Formats: sequence, C-alpha cells, structure tokens
Amino acid sequence: MDYPKSPRNTVKRIPKRGHYDEATVFSILDAGFLCHLGFVVDGQPYVIPTSYGRKGARLYIHGASTSRMLKVTETGIPVCLTVTHVDALVLARSAFHHSMNYRSAVVFGTAELVTDEDEKMDALFCISENILKGRWDEVRPPNAIEMKATSVLAIDIEEASAKIRTGPPGDDAEDYDLPVWAGLLPVKKGYEEAVPDPLLKEGIEMGHSVADWK
Amino acid sequence: MDYPKSPRNTVKRIPKRGHYDEATVFSILDAGFLCHLGFVVDGQPYVIPTSYGRKGARLYIHGASTSRMLKVTETGIPVCLTVTHVDALVLARSAFHHSMNYRSAVVFGTAELVTDEDEKMDALFCISENILKGRWDEVRPPNAIEMKATSVLAIDIEEASAKIRTGPPGDDAEDYDLPVWAGLLPVKKGYEEAVPDPLLKEGIEMGHSVADWK
Repeated sequence: MDYPKSPRNTVKRIPKRGHYDEATVFSILDAGFLCHLGFVVDGQPYVIPTSYGRKGARLYIHGASTSRMLKVTETGIPVCLTVTHVDALVLARSAFHHSMNYRSAVVFGTAELVTDEDEKMDALFCISENILKGRWDEVRPPNAIEMKATSVLAIDIEEASAKIRTGPPGDDAEDYDLPVWAGLLPVKKGYEEAVPDPLLKEGIEMGHSVADWK
Repeated sequence: MDYPKSPRNTVKRIPKRGHYDEATVFSILDAGFLCHLGFVVDGQPYVIPTSYGRKGARLYIHGASTSRMLKVTETGIPVCLTVTHVDALVLARSAFHHSMNYRSAVVFGTAELVTDEDEKMDALFCISENILKGRWDEVRPPNAIEMKATSVLAIDIEEASAKIRTGPPGDDAEDYDLPVWAGLLPVKKGYEEAVPDPLLKEGIEMGHSVADWK
C-alpha cells in the first residue's frame, strides 16, 4: 500500500530519497522506539520526545495523565510524529557533499485519547514490546491506580513518507583527485552490557528480554 | 544564566527532572548533532530531522535553498528545536515504573534567514564542527555556487529547558520483593570503524577528524 502524495507528505528536497509505501514507513517505525512528536498550541510548535508503539496503521504514545503533551493532544489535534535513525556520517571530499546516511519516517495524523480500557492496556503492551520485546510478560502489570494515572493517545496514520540515504559519499567529479580521505563513519547501534539495579536481590536471573535483546 | 520559566518552557511532568540553566541546555545541545525541528504551516505541525550547530546562544541549521523547511522558516516563524539523547533503558520490576535515562533540550525561538555571507560561512563551519570536529579544515570549502544553493537559518534561543533522568529504576517499595530482574540497559554511543569510500584513491590517509573522533 502506498500513501497518497500530498503537499504535506511529499519529499521536496532530493525527491529520489522519498518513499511512500507503507512497508518502508513501518520498517523505519519498527526499528525505533523514540519519536519526536510535534503539536501546536496557540500557534506555537512543541516537539517532545516520547516512546511509541505500532499496531497496524495505528500508533500509540503514552504518558502521565497530567502531562501537557497528552492534555493538549487528547482533544484530537493534528500531530506530526517523526522517527529518525542516523546510520552513518557521510564524509565527502568537499564540505558541501557531506551528508548522513539515515532513515526517517514522518507521519501525519490526529491524536485521540484512548478511552476503552482493553485497548488502553493493549496499547501499553504494544509500546513496551516495541521498546524491549518480551519484557512485559516478565514484570508486574499495571494496576488500576497506575492505569488511571496513565493516558494513552492513538494516532491513525493519515499520511506518511520516509526518506532514506544509503551508500558512500557522492562527490563532484573533479574532487575525486583531491587528497582528502572520504568514506563513512557508521553510528554504533544497540546496547552495552546490562547493569543490575544496586537494590537487586541475590539470585534473581536476568529475564530473556534483557539477556536476548539482540 | 537561567532561562526564565514560562508556561511554554516549564517542565510539568516530574518537575524535579527539569533544568533551566543555560549550561545544562548547552551541554545537551553540544553532545548531539541531530535535532528535530518543529514548525507550523497552516496549523499543521511539521517535525523534520536536521543537523545543527551552536554559537553562543544562537543555533544554526542549514539546508538546500529549495527545501520546504527552510522556505517556511526563513520568514521568521516560531520554531521548537529539540535534541534528545537516550542513555539507557530503565528496567523496573513493574511495567509502570519502566523508564529511560535521557537528556533532552527543548529550545524555543524564531528562525531567521542568515543573509550576511560571512556569518553564513561561519554558521556552516559551526554545524560542521558540531558534527565532526576538525573535518572542515581537511576538506574543500564551499564555492560560490554551493553557497548560493545553501540556506542557513539562525535561531536565537528565547526560552529553553532541559529534562534529565539518570540512575537506577525506582520501584514501589513492595515490588522489590518480586523475583524480577531490574537494572539498566545502556545505549551504545559513538562510531564503528570508519569505512573508506570504494572510490578512495590509494595512499590517502585518514584525516585527524576521522581517526581521532573520540
């Protein structure tokens, strides 16, 4: 499925890097867990980092019921949710052709409060699974008080686009003769060794979610 | 110097994680090179990833003169520029107390086109230095055509705040008896080994910017 191209989601700068198919957008969303959510209050843009989960074409974010981000968006206001992975610095021979290898997804939709208790719990599961698969089943689930203190917003993807750059630097023909090193500096991914909580009681084994995250 | 607290920049959710001093905001900005820039067109929020540089209390972003991001912001519209570092997943004994260790800076200002040619070149240097220190001096500088094809926006920091979480999970007292592993999963930082451009000519040594990036 392709998202229709509109003035809103069409990649204008270097159009060949633009992608409009759902599979590409989903793959970028599923490879991350932190998005930057944009919303507008009285003409002022706000961009707030938050975690998210995806179920089909519906995205979920959550937070404290008291947070500004959730208060202003629960009324059903337009949001832009962006996920970016920087894969490498692209080091060219000229300053101008320096770039990054990246995958970004920009999603447009309307954020609405999830009021159904079952969907709300399922959304929290989704978000948790997207951050660290399997962790949810290893820990104490939310109780009624915690559920009340938590708000969940759903964002159905109305329009989206992805932008991707891969590969080595692309220099101007005459610059390949310059005595300048060129190439990629790939960004490290993943996690270091897990660090136990100082208050962890003896004899408690690391769950599979942590031990097997790769 | 502290930024005055206003309705716009005051951290509402978990206020003890909020910081308003310039030094903390600068340290978070200087530790990154990718921001998410929010701006509004016809009531619609856009959040676009882009690189940035800082000179004092002035931030710079750049892009093609043709890009939507730069076209709409050069008229002097309000922007929100957010930089987030995720340092670790915080794995608690309850789903509810799962969190992340992070450092985020949220900056409010007005983006304006840089028209002075000297400032524009200096801004590009700033951005380059912020991504990979020393690289600028090793490569071919921008020529007149490239400068014309590039727009630079300046954003003076009007208000800002930082939000930081550090340390181990904080669980409810009774949950410490649960047989659930808890701790941190630290996010890897930095770069892997540099990968030479397949078109790199023999005998060209890696510059200090790449070899010594640590």
